Formats: sequence, structure tokens, C-alpha cells
Amino acid sequence: AAGPSAEDLLCIDTIRTLSMDAVQKANSGHPGTPMAMAAPAFALWQNVLSYDPADPLWPNRDRFVLSIGHASMLIYSLIYLAGVRDVRHGKVLDAPALTLEDLKQFRQLDSRTPGHPEYHHTAGVETTTGPLGQGCGNSVGMAIAEKWLAARFNKPGFDLFDYHVYTFCGDGDMMEGVASEAASTAGHLKLGNLTWIYDSNRISIEGSTDIAFTENVGKRFEGYGWHVLEVRDANDQGAFLAALADAKAETSRPTLIIVHSVIGFGAPKKAGTASAHGEPLGEEEIRGAKKAYGWPDEKTFYVPDGVQATFQNGLGARGAAASAKWKALYATYAKEYPELATELDEILTGRLPAGWDKDIPTYEASAKGVASRQSSGEVLNAIAPNLPWLIGGSADLSPSTKTNLTFQGAGAFQPPEWNGTYGGRNLHFGVREHAMGSICNGISLSGIRAYCSGFLIFSDYMKPPIRLSALMNQPVVYIFTHDSIGVGEDGPTHQPIEQLVQLRATPGVTTLRPADANEVAEAWRTLIPMTDRPSVLILSRQNLPTLDRTVYAPASGLAKGAYVLADSDGAPDIILMATGSEVGLVVSAYETLKAEGVKARVVSMPSWDLFEAQPKEYRDSVLPPSVTARIAVEMASPVGWDRYVGLQGAIIAMHGFGASAPAGALMKKFGFTVDAVLAQARALLAK
Amino acid sequence: AAGPSAEDLLCIDTIRTLSMDAVQKANSGHPGTPMAMAAPAFALWQNVLSYDPADPLWPNRDRFVLSIGHASMLIYSLIYLAGVRDVRHGKVLDAPALTLEDLKQFRQLDSRTPGHPEYHHTAGVETTTGPLGQGCGNSVGMAIAEKWLAARFNKPGFDLFDYHVYTFCGDGDMMEGVASEAASTAGHLKLGNLTWIYDSNRISIEGSTDIAFTENVGKRFEGYGWHVLEVRDANDQGAFLAALADAKAETSRPTLIIVHSVIGFGAPKKAGTASAHGEPLGEEEIRGAKKAYGWPDEKTFYVPDGVQATFQNGLGARGAAASAKWKALYATYAKEYPELATELDEILTGRLPAGWDKDIPTYEASAKGVASRQSSGEVLNAIAPNLPWLIGGSADLSPSTKTNLTFQGAGAFQPPEWNGTYGGRNLHFGVREHAMGSICNGISLSGIRAYCSGFLIFSDYMKPPIRLSALMNQPVVYIFTHDSIGVGEDGPTHQPIEQLVQLRATPGVTTLRPADANEVAEAWRTLIPMTDRPSVLILSRQNLPTLDRTVYAPASGLAKGAYVLADSDGAPDIILMATGSEVGLVVSAYETLKAEGVKARVVSMPSWDLFEAQPKEYRDSVLPPSVTARIAVEMASPVGWDRYVGLQGAIIAMHGFGASAPAGALMKKFGFTVDAVLAQARALLAK
Repeated sequence: AAGPSAEDLLCIDTIRTLSMDAVQKANSGHPGTPMAMAAPAFALWQNVLSYDPADPLWPNRDRFVLSIGHASMLIYSLIYLAGVRDVRHGKVLDAPALTLEDLKQFRQLDSRTPGHPEYHHTAGVETTTGPLGQGCGNSVGMAIAEKWLAARFNKPGFDLFDYHVYTFCGDGDMMEGVASEAASTAGHLKLGNLTWIYDSNRISIEGSTDIAFTENVGKRFEGYGWHVLEVRDANDQGAFLAALADAKAETSRPTLIIVHSVIGFGAPKKAGTASAHGEPLGEEEIRGAKKAYGWPDEKTFYVPDGVQATFQNGLGARGAAASAKWKALYATYAKEYPELATELDEILTGRLPAGWDKDIPTYEASAKGVASRQSSGEVLNAIAPNLPWLIGGSADLSPSTKTNLTFQGAGAFQPPEWNGTYGGRNLHFGVREHAMGSICNGISLSGIRAYCSGFLIFSDYMKPPIRLSALMNQPVVYIFTHDSIGVGEDGPTHQPIEQLVQLRATPGVTTLRPADANEVAEAWRTLIPMTDRPSVLILSRQNLPTLDRTVYAPASGLAKGAYVLADSDGAPDIILMATGSEVGLVVSAYETLKAEGVKARVVSMPSWDLFEAQPKEYRDSVLPPSVTARIAVEMASPVGWDRYVGLQGAIIAMHGFGASAPAGALMKKFGFTVDAVLAQARALLAK
Repeated sequence: AAGPSAEDLLCIDTIRTLSMDAVQKANSGHPGTPMAMAAPAFALWQNVLSYDPADPLWPNRDRFVLSIGHASMLIYSLIYLAGVRDVRHGKVLDAPALTLEDLKQFRQLDSRTPGHPEYHHTAGVETTTGPLGQGCGNSVGMAIAEKWLAARFNKPGFDLFDYHVYTFCGDGDMMEGVASEAASTAGHLKLGNLTWIYDSNRISIEGSTDIAFTENVGKRFEGYGWHVLEVRDANDQGAFLAALADAKAETSRPTLIIVHSVIGFGAPKKAGTASAHGEPLGEEEIRGAKKAYGWPDEKTFYVPDGVQATFQNGLGARGAAASAKWKALYATYAKEYPELATELDEILTGRLPAGWDKDIPTYEASAKGVASRQSSGEVLNAIAPNLPWLIGGSADLSPSTKTNLTFQGAGAFQPPEWNGTYGGRNLHFGVREHAMGSICNGISLSGIRAYCSGFLIFSDYMKPPIRLSALMNQPVVYIFTHDSIGVGEDGPTHQPIEQLVQLRATPGVTTLRPADANEVAEAWRTLIPMTDRPSVLILSRQNLPTLDRTVYAPASGLAKGAYVLADSDGAPDIILMATGSEVGLVVSAYETLKAEGVKARVVSMPSWDLFEAQPKEYRDSVLPPSVTARIAVEMASPVGWDRYVGLQGAIIAMHGFGASAPAGALMKKFGFTVDAVLAQARALLAK
């Protein structure tokens, strides 16, 4: 066993004491894990991580993911001590990401050091973590992205991409299903560029992990096809560095390094106990721990001379050299491969290539129409050839969700060992919805445009990563098909009811439920340029008539969230509003009412959030406040529609679960018929 | 290798052909898996399962869970052929659960054979399955329930409970994180009464599992501490029965039997392909398969003479003897242990014991008050001693959610190997929210009242089982604390926004967000008797003042979902409504308005769904339509509140994610202050 040098130990203890002090000052936070894992974290950053603190945006940097996001003081301490520079609006500034003052503002309002690490908020944080297991999934996505970027951009003599992804995870991550799914995926994909460092401290919030978690994690990961290593003492720097070297040398499998640590290392009474996990240690324990480290116990936020210099001499110097070398290489590359360099620049700056939308089709009117999942698949396949870094797939449902890229050369993303290529654009996530979302976040954080798909009902299995896409402003495209009781025979377990409103209620998510093939085309035209948020495309299993746009308003109205699709001469007496598959239904009702001389308006309302973003004038022009006879029709929960129909309107919606039967029978059973809409309209008009 | 006898093969092929024919007639469904797994399913039912078709409610029956719910024709065929009797309203009828005619109505409106098996809908179905992985989790809950029932009720000479739980699962289940979490839990708990039969057909919807799922499942399960067996050919009845015997003999570990099968076994072209999975085989393939079985290929829904008799002679006779023996044993038991027998009867019929609520406390008014998580913990601990079959726990957060049962003898549910007892009432689920919900459904399906807890934000990790509780009418109590930005420093990853509305929008779920300690007490008093639905209790991290109920209306109003807490003399000019922690805020605003002479009313609105269930007269008395100046205050998504404030009202809510800071600072930042409510009230009154 080889412990760290005195110089290194000074750095390690600085991380530990800063973490303790910040948590204590905030009177809130998690001191135990930074204390336990300071040594391996320091060893990784100082000796191995290829990362230039002066350029946190360097494209080929190794990624460090703190999946144990509650240990945020660990990464804040590292960012501060390593002198990582600040980044704002995609530019590196000549200022530190964090100052000592920022550490003192840990967990305070508007500080740069929030309770859990937040992407975009603190430079050096590669992903927002805290919800357990998500960082693990993200890291698999980052490793996939590296493989894909390497396959696409590397050329002989130009290894532009060869970075490694390191993830710190804990017992909680190991227990979460999303991390299990992600690990199985990473094993299948042979992601040799991925290393998880598992902090096995055997303590969880309820006490020893013996009460709930006694499995053999290493054996499980061997089952996944991982390379498994073990370090018996987190403070054994030599052993840990040897394990990291082994991990790097094993290029055909991901590596799990199980590191045995003591939570709250050094605290006289609380070390190794659950009380070191999620609350300040208290002044006495802190003094005791400082004494144990040989630290001046009266000082707080103490950074000994030389600590930052040590980081600069190690991580800093190595990173600067590597990034300088890379930039020189890239300059040559840009001359030899100007088109690829342009593409890479677009990826890294989040721009779209010229002509990305040039092949989006327009659909002829058709009474028979086409399922929106089908037209969406066509539009996706019309966009993807012109947007080469749009990659994605499904949780084993692509034949149903129609998201497979079918054009020449699209290919599947698979390791050479499975006779595939990492340059493929179709990802096979397996039946792992939760990991799919989390992986897509990791891919997106790497600059690649990611989409994923499944049945709308199974958005329930992957809500946490959808929320994190929004929190991180990541433009992941979520494609959810089979969006209502229109699913038919599969029955209530497969028929979404509340899923639409829960996605609409999630901040920062744009939901789109297009009414026909042309709205599908406009939905894609609208969502692809939205690079600061996830979008959710909600599509039908069943055919939807393609509206005659020479009769009805153009589908481009979709971009405003809601628009007048069909109108009366003069002010309407009644407004019929609907989304997706129900728009055709209200159009039919409208035609009947019109024939009867009723002044009716149809509003297609594919996106509440885009509509809410419009000026009041526009919103009032679509839904004039003076018109109180309003009907909303949606084969989903009614919750939320009152906002648009008001207290005097009516909502035709689902008031319980669906049932198993052919879709037509269900629509009749649950009242989604032209007659039902007409009856409701007449009742309102008679008031 | 020993294949089935001619008599058995006739039964097996009947299952196969009924499944093919039903799917074909419905023109929808999944034929391949019933064809593949008919042999092991028959072998299990016929030779091993202790199940009396004449009494599907026999308490000590072995449980059969079809986690691969899409293979519903497998269980429907078994139920029909075995002659399982019908059950309605908790009574066994002298009529079959399914007739041949019912099989012909597969997937049709209002039939007894919906697309996926539905609990309560078809007798013999032990749990609703279809969403993958859920049946696996349920089965762990059922195995836990058996261990608990045995620990509580078995006495020397009276092994009332010794049933075994058998689960059929597939590749999809094996990939789902929830099943991984459940398997790890089952391994830890040493559930020797649990056997999963894994149909390894190596085919998923996108094709061969080689594209996404190449892990070594057996090794993984060994890592979880399971006993792993393998059967190389699903049609090798001898090998499978030997494996079942091994599984039964291993009482200290759960068993995984990996059964290699051919999807669509017998179909000439589609066997072993993805196209046998989820669509009708087509007439030609069906004829070919029937020929391969030596079946009259022109007949459909053909049940040869003697098949039902074979089932009766095997499963039926064995089950009848076992259940008769049990009932005789129970009759003696009831005399020797009358109190336990009464308790068991209450469990099995879903009644509550007398006096279950006698110790629910009443809280004195207090300005400082108490966090609702804390008062809930107190109420739970006041109820649980008087409701001995209320058991539950947390996903490693019980010190925070305050759900630990702390009274003498409550104990932890742990295996003897971990020095525990299966009679304990505190479950430690580990950091496995999704499995926790799924396991609680399994416990609840066994008659035991289950609760579980976590932070509200992490309800996102377990939405699928919450929905299934509702679909199955299971009264699982979900306790979610840390219910708003009141979480404070942990920041936006831990602060729920849209979770409240998504739970409110889920059909069949009762949500309760009590305002103070007395509403917490009433919430428990209300939810425990609701035995036909899950309830979600939403609680604060921070202290909430305990309202003076001599000044304000009694908390018993909670039972109606919303009630007038404080009122004006005469008709109000403005209504302030809120839930949970925001009620105290609007009460303060009310007092100021009242002092200024404004006629204001405060409505506490802990449960939308209970309020919606009230007659219109009551609802209008609480929210008189004539009063249009209305303000709703909730530190969550505004979605849905328009229903109560109308187009002219105002909603003070969260319009984005939260932030990391002390809770008080956040409430100020996001506008949840008395001043903000007053300003809004004055603006509305000035209109």
C-alpha cells in the first residue's frame, strides 16, 4: 500500500477540510463522502485526468461525472483548487469558475455552489447530478458520444477524439435500476472508454448497507461484461492509480473500480456512520477531524500555500500540454478535412447545418391519412441525412415507433466485436427506457443531437431524465407514440391518460402533439432549432386524416402552439379545440355545425407551452375572451384544459383508465365521437 | 431429456393452438411466447403449483405471476383449461372464470380476456401485468407477504402459510431496472419461496437480443445472491420439473430458472423470429404450426376431449386436496387461536380492526408548529400498533420521511440469516424507489396493508407502480415528503414542481396534501378506510404552524377534499385557496385583509379528487360561482388550478424550477410571501 506524498496529502486534506467547512457554514450538506473520496478524486484529477483547467470546453477533455451529486463539495473543491476557468455563454473567461468566497456561499441563494452540481451553472460540472443513478447513465451516453465522434471524425494521424469518461458513484447508484440498465448497456457496447469508480462505504441513510444491499456488486458487473477491479483502501493512492492504469489499458470493456472507503474519514466519532452522510459534522467533530489530519484546527476554509500550485503542476500542466497539442493537431486537421472541421464546429457550438430542413416533405390531403408515428418517421428520415449528428433509437420499439433511420449508411451503433461500427446512427437501447433517457442526456451534453422513442405510457419509466434534460437545457428529442386509447387492444396498461399533462407541467419541456402529417412536419421544423430545451413529440398509433390545407389554415401555425384551423364568417359563437388525433374529430363536428349555420371555430392546439409563450394579443385572437362557449377534446386527462375552456366551457376527456378493445370501439365507449362533440356543442350554445 | 407424455403434450398443444387462434381472431396480440412457454407453464401448473381451481381465493395457494403480460393468452388458456372458477366481489362463484367463448372474445370490448391480464377482472390473474418488470417486483412483494404471514400466523403444527411464488419473466423483464432492483432486494431478503422462470428466447421486438442484451444473466443473479438453474430446452419437461424441484428445495435463496425457448415454437417460418412476438401469425403459419404439432389444422379453438380432465386429475386434484387439508387445519387453528383467526379474516376480507384509529392524536395550536412529515410519522405510529398488518418502509430515507415504526416490537423485516425476523414491520427497500412501489403492490395484493415513502421528487422514479396500484384498486399508501421548494438547500434536482399535478391527474389515486398536524391526522383517518385505491400523502420537510381550530374550522373538513377554513361575515369578496404548507401563508394574508375590513374566505384544499367527488351543492358552497376574485397559492406547477380560480382568478405558483438556498430565501425569491398574496388580492379586488 502506497499512501500519497506529503504534498499530495496536503491537497487531499484541503479538499476534505474545505468540504467540512462549507457544509458547516451552510448548516446543510453532505460532508462524509468528500472526506472519504478526496484521495481517489485527487489522484484521478492530478495524475490521470486529461483536462485543461484553462479550457473547460476543450472537446477532447476527459469527462468527470460526479454521480454522487450530494458530494458536491468534492467537485467544487476540485474546481476551485484546480483553477478551472469560468465559462459563460459558451466562452471561456479569464476568471476562475469558483473562488474561495464562492465555496463560502455553498448552498446560498444565487451562489455558484448550489447543493447539487448543476450543468451550465458552474464551469467544470459536466452534468447535473443528485437524483441517484442519473450520472451513471449520463456517463454511458458520454462514452457513446466519444466513440461516435471518434468514428466520424478521427482520421489516420488525427486521433481527435480519444477521451475517457470517469464516474464517481456510490451505493445508492449501485442500487438504482437506471444504473443497472446503463451498466448492462455499456457492457454490451464494450465501452472501454468508461470507468466507474464505486465508492463502497457500506453506509446508507438508514444505516449500514447490510440492511438492504448485500449483493456481490463485482460479480454482477462481471455478468454485465465489465472489467472489475477492487481497491481495498480509498487512501491507498498507489493501488488506486494502478487500478486506473488497468482500466485505461482495458479498451474493450468498461471498468468498475470498487473502492472501499470510510465515510467521514477522520471524524473522531462520526467516521463510518450514517450521521456523517447528510448533515454538518458539528464544530467538535470538525476540529477532531482536522487534528487527525494534522491540520490547524482553528482555521476554516484554509488553503495552505502550494496546494493550488501542486494542482497546476500536475493536472494543469498535463492538461495544458494535451489541449495545446490537440489544438495544433486540429488546426492541421481543419486544413485537410475542412468539411468535417466545419461539421465539428457546428456540433461544438450548437449550430445547425445549412439545408438541414430542405427535404422535409409536405403531405397531400388524404381522408385515409397516415399515423403520425409513420409521418414522423418519414420526416425524421428526411432530416437525418442533412443533420449528420442526429442519432438515436428506441427502447426496443423502433418497428412500432418508426424511428429507425433507414437510409443508406445510417447503420447501427454497435461495437466491432458485434460486427458493427461506432459510427452507426441507430442506437438499440434494449428494454431500458430509464437508461435510454439518461444516456441521451449524456450524448446531448457531448454536443450530439440525440433522440429516443417509446410508447407514451412508458414515459413514466423515464420521467427523471426528461426532467433533467429540461433542467440542463438539453435538446433531447423524446418521441412518444401510441399516445391514447387509440392504442386499442393492448388495454389500460398501455393507454396513457395522465402522461400528456405531466409532461406539459414539467418546466422547460416543449410538448407537441401534432394533428396530421403536415403538423408533424412542422413540429420537426419547429423543434430541431430549439437547442435550449428538450421536446416531446406525441404521436398516434392509428391513422389520422391529412387535412386539406387549401381549405384549412396552414400547418405552420403549429409553431405558435395553437392556431385557428377553421373559422366562421365573423366572430365565432363556439370554439372547438383539440390536439393530435382529436383535431380530425372536431373538424368533422365543425363541418356539421357550419352546415347548420352555426358560427364555429376550430383551434388546433399542439403545444400549450409554445402557445403560452405567445403575446397576449395573439392568444386572445385565437381564443377571444368574449367567446365562452368552448369545448376541448382530448383522449387524455382533463387536468389543465380548464385554463382554455374557462368555467363555462366543456372538456371531453378521459375520466378514468382505458380498456382493451379495438380503437374504434373504445372511442365510442369513451365518448370521442362527432355526435358527442355535437351534442356538447349544442348544449353549450343553448345556454 | 424427457419430453412430455402424449397426454401432457395434448394439453400443451391445446394451450399453443388456443393462443394462436385467439390472437388470429382478434387480429391483435402476442402468439409467440404462449407457444414457446406452453410446456413449462403446463408442467408447473399440472405438477407443482399448489392451487385449487375451485377456490382461487384459497389463502395458501401458490402464486403464479405472468410478468410477461403480453403473453396473456398463456394464462387465459391455463385458466380456462384448468377450470378456475369465477370470483366476483370477493366470492367464488359456481361458474368458470373463462369459457371458450371468452377466449374467442380475446381483446374485445368488455370481454373477460383483455389484451394484458388484469387483476380483479379475470379470476386466476394474481396481478395486472404488461408494463415490463412490474410482475417481477410484484412477485417479490408476494414472497415478502408470505414470509410475513407465516411469521405472524404460523404456529407449531399449523403451517398456515408456506406458499411459493412463481413468476414467468422474459428478456424485457431482465432488462428493466425495476426487475434488477427487485432481484437485488429478493436476494438480500433470502426469499427462498420465490422462483422466477426466465423465458430466454433471445428475441426482442427490434430483433435478436444480440443487438442490445448480451450480458450473462445467470452470473448477474448469482451476484444478487440467487440460486441459478438453467434448462436448455423449454420442451424438456423432465429437466424443467427437476429444476422446479431444486428451486423448491432451496429455501434460503430465491431461484432463477433460465429456460431456453423458441418464440413461436412450431410456426414453420416465424418460429425464432421477432415477427412471432407481437402480431397474429397469419392463417398459413398457424396451419403450419398445427401440422407440426400433429393437430387438426382446419380446426380453430379446438380442445380435444380429455384435456380438461387431465388438468382436473393433476392440478385440480392436488389443489383440491391441499386446500381441503388447509381448511381443516384452519378450522382447528381458529379454535386454538381465535384472535389470530379473527385478524387473518380481517386481512383476507379487507376489513379494519376495531379501534384502529383510537390513538390518533389531536394537536394543540402552535405558531411554531411541526413539519407534516413529523406529525405524519407520529400519526402512523399511533395507528400501526392497532392495525397490526400495516407494514412498510422507505427507499433509504426513513430518517427523513419519518416513517419508521418505533414502538416496541415493530422490528425490521429481515431474514434470520441477517439476524432478523420475517415478522418485522419496517421494510428497508434500499435506494430502489421503483421496486419499492412494485413490491408494495405485491404485498397489498396479498392482503397486507403496505405503505412506502420517499421524497416527492423521487415519485418520478416510481410512477409506474403508483399507476398500477390505481389500476388494480390496491390501497397502497405512498408517503412523499420534502414536497416543495421548502426542501431548501438541496436545490432544483430535489424540489418537486410538476409531481403534485401528475399524481392528481392519475386516475384512481387520492392525493392528500394536509396543511397542518391536525389535517395530517384527518388525512390518515380518511385514507386508511379507503381500501379500493392508493393514496398519496404529500408532506413538508419544514415546520408548519398548527392552526388554532377553535378559531378556524375543524380539520375534519379534509375528508371532503376542500373546506372553508376561515370565512367572512356574509358573502366573501375574495377567496384564498391553498394546500399544505401554503395554507398557513394564506391564513396570514386573510387575517390582514380581515383587519382591513375585506371580506375574505380561506379554503383549505388538501385533495382535489375528494373535492371533485362531492355533490355540486357542496362544491358551490365552498367556491360560490358568484365569487370570481380567487387566488390559489401552491409552491408547485400552476397546471390544473384554473379549474378553481377561473379565467378571472390568479394563481401564485412555480413557473420554472426551484433553486438551492435556505427555504426562507426561496419562498421570498419565488413570491410565496404574505405580501405577495396581499398584493395579488388587492389587484383582484380593485378590478
